[in-house]
Amino acid sequence: MASTGDPEYKSSSTPVPVAGADYSKFDLLLRFLLFASSLVAVVVMVTGNQTEYLPLPRPAKFRYSPAFVYFVAAFSVSGLYSILTILASLSAIRKTNLKTKLLLHLIFWDAVILGILASATGTAGSMAYLGLKGNNHTGWNKICNIYDKFCRHVGASIAVGLFGSIVVLLLIWISAHSIHSRVPK
Amino acid sequence: MASTGDPEYKSSSTPVPVAGADYSKFDLLLRFLLFASSLVAVVVMVTGNQTEYLPLPRPAKFRYSPAFVYFVAAFSVSGLYSILTILASLSAIRKTNLKTKLLLHLIFWDAVILGILASATGTAGSMAYLGLKGNNHTGWNKICNIYDKFCRHVGASIAVGLFGSIVVLLLIWISAHSIHSRVPK
Repeated sequence: MASTGDPEYKSSSTPVPVAGADYSKFDLLLRFLLFASSLVAVVVMVTGNQTEYLPLPRPAKFRYSPAFVYFVAAFSVSGLYSILTILASLSAIRKTNLKTKLLLHLIFWDAVILGILASATGTAGSMAYLGLKGNNHTGWNKICNIYDKFCRHVGASIAVGLFGSIVVLLLIWISAHSIHSRVPK
Repeated sequence: MASTGDPEYKSSSTPVPVAGADYSKFDLLLRFLLFASSLVAVVVMVTGNQTEYLPLPRPAKFRYSPAFVYFVAAFSVSGLYSILTILASLSAIRKTNLKTKLLLHLIFWDAVILGILASATGTAGSMAYLGLKGNNHTGWNKICNIYDKFCRHVGASIAVGLFGSIVVLLLIWISAHSIHSRVPK
């Protein structure tokens, strides 16, 4: 621990690392992962259509449930967001001063996206759980014994979505750590 | 903008603000708000019991739905977390060096709590919406026309929970801004 309360900087022989630790490559990798998982989550959810004959044809589609529509919308937004932030990160990769400012903005927006993705994953997850187990108290019957393929798609999509949410959490951690490493000790 | 690429600090007449902007009071205020909203969300959700005679007694309780149980668990955790972080913030309020480290840890954990609260709000929100509107495609009937008091409690609890999630988002923004203000320009 350095001595506290001294507003003057040390101009001693050991230079303070002003540039800080550089996590740009890891950050970019995670943003690519976010894009990939958003894309997979949306595609798997949208392609889950299944029609059963009971005996009349009764299709199951993601857009019949507002929860799944919100899920698809949220992960479409995060997919676009990941592209924009990849471009922003690439454009600032060599500019130290600009980058500190960018990191702050990235934390702001990453936190918003984390909230959106986590709520979307929770929303879709609760509907999927209800479809899988039903609820005796309210008389809501399970439907996954009938719509097996649809439920597999929904389950896989939510799992990928959960992974994407964790990636955003890691992105916030990395950006915060990166800014923190630029503060003189 | 200062000139970039210079690793040496200026020891000129204008001292760089190493202590950074101080948002401690605002941070503490928000953490109190988080505690209050967590407490209110849990209490309102738990006290929503309602029994209807149709003609047999059929109670509605939050613990009949896994979504609402998760909601109560999540906001109980955030209530405890807010107490712990209020104590941590108070203990470090005068120590600049310790505080920068603490801010980083707070961002880490605030982001985790944001993910938990957002997912819990989404989970409970989708169940409340289903209870309010039902879903014709799956044959899940709405229940809020019968359990009016229960649904009012659930709705109010989710609204307070959403407010709590936004408070955590603000907390992340403040901590990030506070760390950023300590980086020399």
